[in-house]
Amino acid sequence: PKSFFLIAGPCVVESEDLVMEVANDVYAICKKLGIPYVFKASYRKANRTSASSFTGIGDEAAMQLVKKVGDHFGLPTTSDIHAHEEAAQAAKYIDILQIPAFLCRQTDLLVAAAETGKIVNVKKGQFVSGDAMKFAVDKIRKAGNDKVMLTERGTTFGYQDLIVDYRNISIMSAHNVPVVMDCTHSLQQPNQTTGVTGGNPQLIGTIAKAAIATGAHGLFIETHPDPSCAKSDGANMLQLSSLEELLVQLVKIRKAVVE
Amino acid sequence: PKSFFLIAGPCVVESEDLVMEVANDVYAICKKLGIPYVFKASYRKANRTSASSFTGIGDEAAMQLVKKVGDHFGLPTTSDIHAHEEAAQAAKYIDILQIPAFLCRQTDLLVAAAETGKIVNVKKGQFVSGDAMKFAVDKIRKAGNDKVMLTERGTTFGYQDLIVDYRNISIMSAHNVPVVMDCTHSLQQPNQTTGVTGGNPQLIGTIAKAAIATGAHGLFIETHPDPSCAKSDGANMLQLSSLEELLVQLVKIRKAVVE
Amino acid sequence: PKSFFLIAGPCVVESEDLVMEVANDVYAICKKLGIPYVFKASYRKANRTSASSFTGIGDEAAMQLVKKVGDHFGLPTTSDIHAHEEAAQAAKYIDILQIPAFLCRQTDLLVAAAETGKIVNVKKGQFVSGDAMKFAVDKIRKAGNDKVMLTERGTTFGYQDLIVDYRNISIMSAHNVPVVMDCTHSLQQPNQTTGVTGGNPQLIGTIAKAAIATGAHGLFIETHPDPSCAKSDGANMLQLSSLEELLVQLVKIRKAVVE
Amino acid sequence: PKSFFLIAGPCVVESEDLVMEVANDVYAICKKLGIPYVFKASYRKANRTSASSFTGIGDEAAMQLVKKVGDHFGLPTTSDIHAHEEAAQAAKYIDILQIPAFLCRQTDLLVAAAETGKIVNVKKGQFVSGDAMKFAVDKIRKAGNDKVMLTERGTTFGYQDLIVDYRNISIMSAHNVPVVMDCTHSLQQPNQTTGVTGGNPQLIGTIAKAAIATGAHGLFIETHPDPSCAKSDGANMLQLSSLEELLVQLVKIRKAVVE
Repeated sequence: PKSFFLIAGPCVVESEDLVMEVANDVYAICKKLGIPYVFKASYRKANRTSASSFTGIGDEAAMQLVKKVGDHFGLPTTSDIHAHEEAAQAAKYIDILQIPAFLCRQTDLLVAAAETGKIVNVKKGQFVSGDAMKFAVDKIRKAGNDKVMLTERGTTFGYQDLIVDYRNISIMSAHNVPVVMDCTHSLQQPNQTTGVTGGNPQLIGTIAKAAIATGAHGLFIETHPDPSCAKSDGANMLQLSSLEELLVQLVKIRKAVVE
Repeated sequence: PKSFFLIAGPCVVESEDLVMEVANDVYAICKKLGIPYVFKASYRKANRTSASSFTGIGDEAAMQLVKKVGDHFGLPTTSDIHAHEEAAQAAKYIDILQIPAFLCRQTDLLVAAAETGKIVNVKKGQFVSGDAMKFAVDKIRKAGNDKVMLTERGTTFGYQDLIVDYRNISIMSAHNVPVVMDCTHSLQQPNQTTGVTGGNPQLIGTIAKAAIATGAHGLFIETHPDPSCAKSDGANMLQLSSLEELLVQLVKIRKAVVE
Repeated sequence: PKSFFLIAGPCVVESEDLVMEVANDVYAICKKLGIPYVFKASYRKANRTSASSFTGIGDEAAMQLVKKVGDHFGLPTTSDIHAHEEAAQAAKYIDILQIPAFLCRQTDLLVAAAETGKIVNVKKGQFVSGDAMKFAVDKIRKAGNDKVMLTERGTTFGYQDLIVDYRNISIMSAHNVPVVMDCTHSLQQPNQTTGVTGGNPQLIGTIAKAAIATGAHGLFIETHPDPSCAKSDGANMLQLSSLEELLVQLVKIRKAVVE
Repeated sequence: PKSFFLIAGPCVVESEDLVMEVANDVYAICKKLGIPYVFKASYRKANRTSASSFTGIGDEAAMQLVKKVGDHFGLPTTSDIHAHEEAAQAAKYIDILQIPAFLCRQTDLLVAAAETGKIVNVKKGQFVSGDAMKFAVDKIRKAGNDKVMLTERGTTFGYQDLIVDYRNISIMSAHNVPVVMDCTHSLQQPNQTTGVTGGNPQLIGTIAKAAIATGAHGLFIETHPDPSCAKSDGANMLQLSSLEELLVQLVKIRKAVVE
């Protein structure tokens, strides 16, 4: 395909106003630039570092808002699921079930996601090689679902840093699946003593450009009108007002790569 | 306490004969050496690399066998749980609920384990610092349970290797919990192209001796009468017949450390 | 500048025929594509893993051949130096003195290179952050030479692998120096039990495209008419006949980035 | 041998008073505890992060002081050399030539050290596996010198940390050489933005105990009467007044291991 696709939205469903605002802006930009757009927001954050962090407004309520966004704008949607028993319910509202990186080895979860018949997007564990992600793909295919995607989101490099290994774009593509670069979580700086994961949002463009140049099929970018107020992952979300300029550059690089 | 404690048994409940044989032998050795013994066997392996790997004989049946071993020998028992809804059931049969390393950030699971009132042993994620494990401890304590232990099991070092960082023994002890060294899984060589995790069982003694010398409160050692026939993790299990000699050495080192 | 520059040639000066053949072909390609070209060949390999590896045809003879290539084609040249007392001699023949990655912290070597007045290109150590390379730049500037470049060549990731961290392109550019991506050595797989460093030459394009997309000023690519016969680093050298196609793609990506 | 040996002294020769004071104290402690003692002080620091760091009082003067200490107390001495042309001179004053970790792959340096006929102690590079250190050993043996030792000093783990891999004690011992644990530099936290390498001196005991428990033949500990005033590596040097208590513990662990 000519363009890459974009998975974007706020980290977590904070409120109807927020998801509508973000979706509306990103929808307009993507339409203008010819980029297929998937709306993303998590209905719950299940693995926050600290017990006192915000985890969501309630699963059902949040899922309904995600669906409302999808219906309103005519967009496919995605959200992550965290336990096998969530899969069937989430599948009622959401088009692409995302498997969190920490959970990419949990067979029950992968199989339950696969059995919904929805597209399953598995994030590469920080401790897993691109090559070994073929076992995650196999688990889903063996459960009768061939609609699998893989997402690169960085690899453990010391306790407080992640590195993105772009070799994984080629290596995971060789499993015959679309490969997405998560430009947000790749920049996390985990294991901070504060219990709040740090980041480097000024490098989002670096992560995204290298991904498009090396053939990533999609990008994942969390974005928020005001990242400093976001209730989760504020340290790495892209300011919504900066998204268009970045995408314009990426579209040019994509053209240079595929033409 | 004068001695360290030992968590040992086969990786997974393969059969009643196997668990009884292993427990019987380890029980006798520990009694002779004055080592408090906790019997360990998983009732299910939920995160095998490959979908075709053996995962268990059935949860309920396996848990009953674990309990039978505990009752027969008068031993506390442990097994890992993989989802929050397993916690209550497992707590009926098992004394120490172990949280797998990949899942150490899953708040629901930690809270559910905590709420059983059982001892909770959280394995340090391969991607987590010893310092950041305080957040796992906090999640359990906030759920009203102060009976927490932490287990070191190595940290991601390249895609196909783990390194044990012995600084974590001191660092995790500073969270005011007993610290266990998992001498088995620390030696894993993950992400092998075969889908079967490799190992280095000849180095089990190295891992264990360093742990005792640096003040670990307990050791975790999977052992099997014939590791080459084991249905899971054979690559790193200690031959049951080699256990006594190793423990004799470790008891001496422990004495040198605490006296 | 519109184009990136290219540092290319065979790993080591094997013979006059070889250096002339490679320079001739690369010169023609770069002229056609408008890429400034720097001819590279080492006069000696001083840090081969194994004592029995080929190290060169003699320093003086090899340097003369490098100069001959430069004079013949009107090209600047580069080669690495390994000890401070080599700097002055090498400077008679060579335009850009390259400091090997293992030696990027050796103050005497950096100062001696700086004092020749030549351009100094310091390769980032596999154990050094992009940020900490500012200290290498400072050592050269304090010795009175402001003509410094830095080269990214991957970072230790487990014993037998390197990862390229593209954040370093931005981070090292912030030291106000041109930044080069070494597409050859970044793909090394060190510490092989055979004593011969391994590689992944099919990923050279991946490394190069990501570098251009993220703003690298130059590329370093070792190339050889027949890498399987090369006397050093054959595992990662690009087949000379594949160079043009790759550069054509890279020129397109560069245009997309700078326009 | 019953005891491990100890290589100890201040990081760098700061003054005659300092080296005499340290040697005198360590000599007395080792004599009391039956530990063979090798006096260590560098005559120059050649790879300081920052150009403005202290590097020494002059090579010749410093070497003479090292020799004076050796002669006065009847001790073997050691210091590191940084370039092949230093080897012969250093060999006039010093008994064990130490090869810095960054330089462990420099063939010329290893061969020059070997050719002095002195004992050569090669520190494992932060980027080298214990297994691959056999190539360094081979280079020295092929140069006709079989008196080789290897020193573990930690491995790159993220940009700002090192981990000690205790598997390397066994793995390097299998090259048939004595293996030393460098308890000082293993705790370095490199690539700090200040240009001054950080540390964790409170963990020196952890590093040392694990080394003795796993069979290290020797320990390397830099010590200073007042580390906060030391002109190099103050962040990790052991307070001289704490050395005896640590060694008493280590002697006990050693006994437990070898008896």
